[in-house]
Amino acid sequence: MAWGADPDDGERVSFERLWEELRPLGRADSGGYRRFTWTPADLDARAWFADTARGLGLDVEVDRNGNQWAWWGSGGDAVVTGSHLDSVPDGGAFDGPLGVVSSLSAVALLKARGVAPGRPLAVVNFVEEEGARFGVPCLGSRLLTGAVAPSRAQDLRDSDGVTWAEAMTGADLDATRLGADPERLARIGTFVELHVEQGRGLVDANAPVGVASAIWPHGRWRFEFAGEANHAGTTRLADRRDPMLTFAETVLGAREQASLAGALATFGRVSVEPNGTNAIASLVRAWLDSRAPDASALARVVQGVTELAAERGDRDGVKVTVTPESETPVVEFNADLRDEVAGLAGGAPILPTGAGHDAGVLSAHVPTAMLFVRNPTGVSHAPGEYAGPDDCLAGVEALTTVLEHLVTR
Amino acid sequence: MAWGADPDDGERVSFERLWEELRPLGRADSGGYRRFTWTPADLDARAWFADTARGLGLDVEVDRNGNQWAWWGSGGDAVVTGSHLDSVPDGGAFDGPLGVVSSLSAVALLKARGVAPGRPLAVVNFVEEEGARFGVPCLGSRLLTGAVAPSRAQDLRDSDGVTWAEAMTGADLDATRLGADPERLARIGTFVELHVEQGRGLVDANAPVGVASAIWPHGRWRFEFAGEANHAGTTRLADRRDPMLTFAETVLGAREQASLAGALATFGRVSVEPNGTNAIASLVRAWLDSRAPDASALARVVQGVTELAAERGDRDGVKVTVTPESETPVVEFNADLRDEVAGLAGGAPILPTGAGHDAGVLSAHVPTAMLFVRNPTGVSHAPGEYAGPDDCLAGVEALTTVLEHLVTR
Repeated sequence: MAWGADPDDGERVSFERLWEELRPLGRADSGGYRRFTWTPADLDARAWFADTARGLGLDVEVDRNGNQWAWWGSGGDAVVTGSHLDSVPDGGAFDGPLGVVSSLSAVALLKARGVAPGRPLAVVNFVEEEGARFGVPCLGSRLLTGAVAPSRAQDLRDSDGVTWAEAMTGADLDATRLGADPERLARIGTFVELHVEQGRGLVDANAPVGVASAIWPHGRWRFEFAGEANHAGTTRLADRRDPMLTFAETVLGAREQASLAGALATFGRVSVEPNGTNAIASLVRAWLDSRAPDASALARVVQGVTELAAERGDRDGVKVTVTPESETPVVEFNADLRDEVAGLAGGAPILPTGAGHDAGVLSAHVPTAMLFVRNPTGVSHAPGEYAGPDDCLAGVEALTTVLEHLVTR
Repeated sequence: MAWGADPDDGERVSFERLWEELRPLGRADSGGYRRFTWTPADLDARAWFADTARGLGLDVEVDRNGNQWAWWGSGGDAVVTGSHLDSVPDGGAFDGPLGVVSSLSAVALLKARGVAPGRPLAVVNFVEEEGARFGVPCLGSRLLTGAVAPSRAQDLRDSDGVTWAEAMTGADLDATRLGADPERLARIGTFVELHVEQGRGLVDANAPVGVASAIWPHGRWRFEFAGEANHAGTTRLADRRDPMLTFAETVLGAREQASLAGALATFGRVSVEPNGTNAIASLVRAWLDSRAPDASALARVVQGVTELAAERGDRDGVKVTVTPESETPVVEFNADLRDEVAGLAGGAPILPTGAGHDAGVLSAHVPTAMLFVRNPTGVSHAPGEYAGPDDCLAGVEALTTVLEHLVTR
C-alpha cells in the first residue's frame, strides 16, 4: 500500500499529515537528512514541533538544556513519550522523527477518542540525540539526567570550531543554564519511546511492532594517528612516518576483533591533515564506534584494537592516542513495564538493539520502555532507511494503546 | 649562520628583503602555507610578484592562462626563469617561492653588476603548480603548452564545487581565453627553474646546489570505494558493505606494491561520505600518488594496487572505480644544458627527483634545466621544509651565473 492511498482512514490521515509536513525539513540532495542541532534545518523542525503541539492544545516549553516539551496537563508522575528530530549526516527520514510524529499522532488520537488522562502526558523532542554535530550522542537527555557536566557540553565544538554554547545562543536560547534538572526528571513517572527498528529482527519475527529488552553497551573512541607530513613524491618509504598505514591496519584489525567477540566495530568517520594528494599525512583522526552484547566483550574489542594500533604505530613511527568520547553501559529496560507494553501491543516480540537512545539514558532514572517499528531492509542512518505505512500506523496504534493504559490506570 | 645576520652583504640583503616580504603571505596557524590558486592569499602573493618585478624595472604581464611574466627586454629566444607561488595545504615556505625569489634576486644582481643581456630575460610565476585547489598539478604550464585542454581546465572544481573559470573570473581575469599559447612558448629559448630539493640527495653529496637529471614518471589516481551507508550499531558484520575496509586493505597493498617495485605510492587525501561516527560509510574517495624510476615500474604499481582493491572490494561488496587524474611520463632534461649548468654551478652534482615541476612540462618543448638547493632534513610539502640562508644564497649565485652566461653568450 502506498503512502496516502487511504484518505478515508482518519488515523492514517492524521499521522500522514504530520509526516508530510515534517518530511521536507532539512532534506539534502542525497535524499537523506542533515538536521544538525541548532542549524537552520533543526530550528525549522523545532518550530514545526512547537506549532504542531500547540495545534493539539498542548503547552510547549523548552527546558534549560534545549529539549522541547509539549504538555497535556501538569504535575508529577507524568507519562512522557517522544524521541528526537536531529539526524546523522545524510540520515534517514525515520530515525527520531517516526517517534516524534507517532507521539503527536497518539495524542491526537487520544483526544479524538475522548480519553481523559488521570496523569499528565507529555511529548518530548530531545536535542542532539545523534551527536552528529558535537560528538556526544543523547546530549539533551544526558544533560537532563546529569550524566554529562554542563561545562563539558558548553565547550563541545563542531567541526567548524563552533561551541555548543555559541550555537545554542545563536538559536536565541540561554546556554548559561545547562545542566541536571532533577525537578523535571522527578516529574516523569514513565517514559516510552517509539523508534524505527535498525536491524531486521522484526522482519525475521514477522511482526510490525516489537518491544526492546536491552541496549548493548557501546561507545565512541577517537583515535589520533600522528606521523609527519612530507612530500609524497620525494620521501623514501624508509624515511616516512605515514599515519595512513597505521590507520589502515587499525581498520582491518577492528573488524577482526569485533568478529572474534561477536561484537560490532566501525570506523566511519575520518579526518586527515593536511589531506593533500601529494603530501604524506601528518595526522589521521578516526572514530571507532563499538558495541557488544556485554561489557567485557566491548572492553576486549577496544583493548584489542588499541593494542594493535599501538604496535603498528611503533612500526610506522606513528604515535597513537586513543580518547574515549562516550561510553554507555548496558541498558536492561524495566522488565515489568516491558512485559506490560508487549502485552498491550498484542504480544509483540521482545528484542535487543545495538543502538543507543534517549530511552536508554532515562531508564537509569525512570521506568522506561521502547517500541520498535519494523524496518524491511534493516537500513538505518542512511537515505534508504524505511518503514511501511501500515507498520507505522501499527506503531501509532500500539503507542496510543500503551499511553491510554498508562494515563488512565 | 642565522637569517639576516650579515646586513653588510648586499646580495644577502636583497634576497632576504624579498624573502621577508613574501614570507607572511598566506601563512596558516600551522606555520605552513595555504596559498591556493585564486584565493586571497594567492592574489596577495601575485600582487607582491608584480610590484617587486616592476620595482626592478621589469614589464609585468599576465598570460591568457593566468601565469605572470616579468620581462627584461622583449622578443624571441628569451631566457626564462621562475617557479610558482601556490602551495599544498600547510606546505612549506620554500617549495616554489624559493625559485621565484631567487629569480628576482638574480635579476637584481645582474642589474647591479651592469650586465647587458643580449637576449630577453623573463621571470615567470606559474599558476596552480601544486594542483592543490583544482587537482591538476602544473596546470598553468600545461595549459600554456597545450598539454591540458582549456575546456577541461575551465570545468575543474575545487572541494567547494567552484570551477576554475569561476575562480579565475573572481580574480578579475578573463577565463574564456584559456589554452595553448604557441607564440609565447616559441619566444622561450631556454628555461631554468631553481627549486628547494625535496629529499636529501644534496645532504649525502655534501653540496649546497645540484642539477636535475630527470623527473620520475608519476601520476594521481582517484579511487572510489562505493559501499552502503548503514547504522554502525545495528548492522550485522555479515550484512555490511563497508568501503572503509576495502580502502584500508588498498592503503596497505599500495605500500607493498611500491616497495616491491622500488617506487613510491601514497594515499594522503581521503574523503568519506557521510563521515558520521555511528554510520558505516557509503563512499570512500582516496587519491593514490605514485612515482617510479621508469614507466613500466609505475604501471606495475598502479595495476597491482587496482587489482588488489578490486579483489578486496568483491569480498566486501564494495564497487571500486579507479580514475586517472593526471599522468606524467618520465622527463629527461636536456643533457647538454644540464652539463653546462652543472659546470657553471661549480661542478654541482647531478641527481633525479620524484617531484613534478613546471620545468618538466616545459622540457618537452624548450631546452630546460633545474637547479636544486640543499634541504637539510629532506622535509617537503610540510611546515618543517627548510633551506639554510647560505645555501639559498649559493642557489641565487649559481642561478645568476647561469643566467648571465645564457643571456650574454
